[in-house]
Amino acid sequence: MRIINIGLLGFGTVGTGVAKLLIENKELLTARVGAHLNLKWIADIDTKTDRGIRPPDGVLTNDADRVVCDPEIDIVIEMIGGEGIAKDLIKKAIENGKHIVTANKALLAGHGNKLFETAAQKGVDLAFEASVGGCMPTIKTMRESLVANQIKAMTGILNGTCNYILSKIADEGITFQEALAEAQKKGYAEADPTLDVGGFDTAHKIAILTALAYGMEINLKDVYVEGISEITPLDIEFAKQFGYRIKLLAISKFENNRVEARVHPTMIPSGNLLASIKGTVNAITVSADAAGDILLYGHGAGMMPTASAVLSDIVDIARNILSGTARRIPALSYQRDNIRKIPILPMDDLITHYYFRFSALDHPGVLSTISGIIGKYGISIQSVHQKGRKMNGAVPVVMLSHRAKEADVKRALNDINALDVVSNDAVLIRIENEKRDSNTQG
Amino acid sequence: MRIINIGLLGFGTVGTGVAKLLIENKELLTARVGAHLNLKWIADIDTKTDRGIRPPDGVLTNDADRVVCDPEIDIVIEMIGGEGIAKDLIKKAIENGKHIVTANKALLAGHGNKLFETAAQKGVDLAFEASVGGCMPTIKTMRESLVANQIKAMTGILNGTCNYILSKIADEGITFQEALAEAQKKGYAEADPTLDVGGFDTAHKIAILTALAYGMEINLKDVYVEGISEITPLDIEFAKQFGYRIKLLAISKFENNRVEARVHPTMIPSGNLLASIKGTVNAITVSADAAGDILLYGHGAGMMPTASAVLSDIVDIARNILSGTARRIPALSYQRDNIRKIPILPMDDLITHYYFRFSALDHPGVLSTISGIIGKYGISIQSVHQKGRKMNGAVPVVMLSHRAKEADVKRALNDINALDVVSNDAVLIRIENEKRDSNTQG
Repeated sequence: MRIINIGLLGFGTVGTGVAKLLIENKELLTARVGAHLNLKWIADIDTKTDRGIRPPDGVLTNDADRVVCDPEIDIVIEMIGGEGIAKDLIKKAIENGKHIVTANKALLAGHGNKLFETAAQKGVDLAFEASVGGCMPTIKTMRESLVANQIKAMTGILNGTCNYILSKIADEGITFQEALAEAQKKGYAEADPTLDVGGFDTAHKIAILTALAYGMEINLKDVYVEGISEITPLDIEFAKQFGYRIKLLAISKFENNRVEARVHPTMIPSGNLLASIKGTVNAITVSADAAGDILLYGHGAGMMPTASAVLSDIVDIARNILSGTARRIPALSYQRDNIRKIPILPMDDLITHYYFRFSALDHPGVLSTISGIIGKYGISIQSVHQKGRKMNGAVPVVMLSHRAKEADVKRALNDINALDVVSNDAVLIRIENEKRDSNTQG
Repeated sequence: MRIINIGLLGFGTVGTGVAKLLIENKELLTARVGAHLNLKWIADIDTKTDRGIRPPDGVLTNDADRVVCDPEIDIVIEMIGGEGIAKDLIKKAIENGKHIVTANKALLAGHGNKLFETAAQKGVDLAFEASVGGCMPTIKTMRESLVANQIKAMTGILNGTCNYILSKIADEGITFQEALAEAQKKGYAEADPTLDVGGFDTAHKIAILTALAYGMEINLKDVYVEGISEITPLDIEFAKQFGYRIKLLAISKFENNRVEARVHPTMIPSGNLLASIKGTVNAITVSADAAGDILLYGHGAGMMPTASAVLSDIVDIARNILSGTARRIPALSYQRDNIRKIPILPMDDLITHYYFRFSALDHPGVLSTISGIIGKYGISIQSVHQKGRKMNGAVPVVMLSHRAKEADVKRALNDINALDVVSNDAVLIRIENEKRDSNTQG
């Protein structure tokens, strides 16, 4: 039986999961693939700590270089993370003709265009299913299942930490800080939670998906990013009253040859399936011209779910090797000649619905002053609500807008924030409530 | 640029969708695949009716035989349906070395083992993504994304017609017959709806998935099938009160080396994502050892969603042809040597929770008599409810059981139905409320 030799770089959480699957589900893998996936090397600085699995003797090494240079190795699995040594090792492995599997979204979002080019030049595969949405088959669905579709939009909950925190705030009425502390205690959030709660991890993922969907280069720097740290139980409560839930959404659209790609807390109708996704799981809706709306749901992180996705890449590459082929599917879904630079719409040009909350002093005429400013900038208000009790002498005034332009909204809020009768800066939360799906039978 | 020649058999609804995608999204397909997918033939008895698209001159033919014998054709798309001429044409096309794409679940569920064997002998691919769940990437997820996972269970809403009818009954309190009439008026149900509402279409699909999941031959005849025609608004209403929804579920499990495969109306907790799937869409939850629970959702039928799935198969095969390979992934997920005959658990041996509704005369001692019989067969009751008004002198007595064996349940109901104080045969609905997912972080 043919042997495919695998070198694993990084024996942390996900690396351990990958080793575990290769060892514990070995028989199953052989029965399905028809070849032996042999874990030849595991490289890590720490070769001593017990990870709960026992790799065969001689597999553990702290010499990563030796792994990427071993002529017997067919596939290198990069599970180190970050953009430093991980990048160098991937480049070296590619140079040595190894196929690569990685879950490193930060690296791909920042340096993917160059890495994919290098892989193409060397004729090797660079696979990354585990970089977006853990065990949800996100990349495979985009590149293969929806291959004949024009992708119109993607809306995703792509960070389990944020979704856990927002679910906690919604269910228990606690503050962001309290919910974050809870997430850290449970191991769902890092000691420095910025990458997650700042929305950056989600931005890495939607930058990758946006490229795949519309045939464009990866463009992380123009993805708008806003995190969840300003979300309060009060706004979540108001949202509920209007029939919305607040989620940290990754939103990507292709309309009239313009690409939107943004990450921010978003109100979505409570009847939307994404609104019912609670806790640490991920979900994504993809709207496509032929398929209509499809939704994927699953664990977006964690040892074994992520390892499951890594293994799907390993097997894809193994099957290519067995078939005597490589680069069967283009990395970014389109043939390289067909990948264009498409600009991402500047946030100022975004047109969407808005939720505003003002902290207004309870004086006569305040509402009229605020409404006047909003009207002056051509923003049309759908409804106004003055609800709840006073807080520090101010009452919350909530407005829902019709579709308005972000630049106008910003100018109006600037003017309103400058008013003496307004005690805190206005809260702005974007609303996503379009029905996109045109396929009604199924 | 390399040309892949395609012959389409059947120019009905889905066939038209396939032709439409090949023609209208041609540029997109070329940009992704790097080859030209050329629709060389469309064969149908009716070449006159206007389908809203205009195939190029000379493409339409009523000579299907010519298509499957044309030496230039690489891939034959069978969109005729049924087990007669479709089977003959597929066999002939395979004999002629053509790769096959089909959506014909009835054919595969009934004759798939033989057809896959023939395809293997001739070294061609027989692809069938569109046979289960329309545009949801069900087959691809099972065979590729979850390749390293032991599949533990699948729970699916796989028939849009039934889900539409049950949603209607639940939302509007109308009868099955009224909801069916509505579905027929909207084109969601056939004039003869037996295949859908009898559960047979769902059975075809779960028979295929069960084989894929556990490495066994397709075994349709041992799949238990019960349709939705006996479901009443009253039972749906009771279900709601207990926190359940009623769905026609396909359930497949692999536990202790025993396979369950069954289709029947099922009560599931209203918090389960499947409970919120309304209307004609499909959804499936797959529970796997590494990935945990993943869910797919999308249009399970209809012209364009089904065509989207057919195209994903066409492109997979085209990519194989371009790579100079075939049969890259085994049809039934396991290498052929590893496919076993595993018996499906007889229904009598099923152990699950049950909902019973008895129509009992309002006499003293009736409840005690019924409970006595249930106790005699070792069935333990979780709760008893006597609710609602009399109907024809009888009151509904509802019981929810703990886990019980189906054979015991049947015997008990037989005895109870024979009682003079019971006016109608008891209603039995199985309950599915296990939490399977062991992965909590994501």
